[in-house]
Amino acid sequence: MPDAATKSERTRQRILDAAAHVLSVRGYSGTRLSDIARHAAVQAPAIYYYFPSREDVIEEVMWAGVSRMRTHVRSVLDALPPETPPLDRIDAAVEAHLRHELEISDYTRAAIRNAGQLPEHIQTRQLAEANRYGDLWRTLIADAAKAGAIRSDLDLRAARMLILGALNWAVEWWNPRRGSLTTVVETAQSLIRNGLGVR
Amino acid sequence: MPDAATKSERTRQRILDAAAHVLSVRGYSGTRLSDIARHAAVQAPAIYYYFPSREDVIEEVMWAGVSRMRTHVRSVLDALPPETPPLDRIDAAVEAHLRHELEISDYTRAAIRNAGQLPEHIQTRQLAEANRYGDLWRTLIADAAKAGAIRSDLDLRAARMLILGALNWAVEWWNPRRGSLTTVVETAQSLIRNGLGVR
Repeated sequence: MPDAATKSERTRQRILDAAAHVLSVRGYSGTRLSDIARHAAVQAPAIYYYFPSREDVIEEVMWAGVSRMRTHVRSVLDALPPETPPLDRIDAAVEAHLRHELEISDYTRAAIRNAGQLPEHIQTRQLAEANRYGDLWRTLIADAAKAGAIRSDLDLRAARMLILGALNWAVEWWNPRRGSLTTVVETAQSLIRNGLGVR
Repeated sequence: MPDAATKSERTRQRILDAAAHVLSVRGYSGTRLSDIARHAAVQAPAIYYYFPSREDVIEEVMWAGVSRMRTHVRSVLDALPPETPPLDRIDAAVEAHLRHELEISDYTRAAIRNAGQLPEHIQTRQLAEANRYGDLWRTLIADAAKAGAIRSDLDLRAARMLILGALNWAVEWWNPRRGSLTTVVETAQSLIRNGLGVR
């Protein structure tokens, strides 16, 4: 028989998973505590045993969405051989970002789709995590520029934000019934590598 | 003295302008009828003289946001000399899209930021208009491909959606205090032209 702490932790996790799913589909305004409870198969009032409010559940999901993305992309980059050329490292990050948001994580999809939709008081933790994830990309692109692999006409901040926008917005349009994710990944890699790279 | 129809039309327009502003800043869930009324300098109940509900105001703004973007980009393209090469036409569309959403139109910013956040029943008109705008880009890119200007390794649909994502997401990060819009426009043009173009 599982001990109480474990069971409690599992229920809390199930509530968060349900909230991530509902939030990724319905958005902040459409996410009701009753929907989260139904998806988690708990009574709605039970949620208050784990979280002070609906907003605390959402805040946790939004933070975890960005945090998991960062951890995933970081681990993919760390697994590359140290001699990997900088544009190949960017290719790997592009694939990891797209697959994580589109195939793996309701949390990340929820975080991206609701970025900028939340009331300010529940954005703080997510924004701090998003800045850390931005730093990862800033370093990737700065390393490529230092290696002479990036065209000098590009503003590196604007280029980084435009690239992240292209990747993030895929949550709004990608549909597995309209083509393979591999096609999207390869097209994104080619667009970005050629978009950034020295001719 | 203005006649009643004109005055009524002006008030209706002021309500829509106010709704576009509030919606572009606060998002769907944060947009209250009382905020719209305050920004429009009308009493909240007066809004019901012009629109059946809060959702009708929002639906009109979302539709107009996409429609005005399409009209603007269309008119910029139509003003180009007929012999303009296809990648130069794409450059012009990139600039028109970015300037329209970032400098010109609260409506378009509202439409982009709330795409995918609305309840389904108020999305229909906006989605139809978004498809028409997508057609404009589909043609731009197809014409460039026909002219042999686009690399054959790219999936044209994925490329189009990634490019529109890069442009749309700029509403989430662009801040006039952190650099000029011209820098963003030129970097986007260079990224996209090199990202698509034959080497």
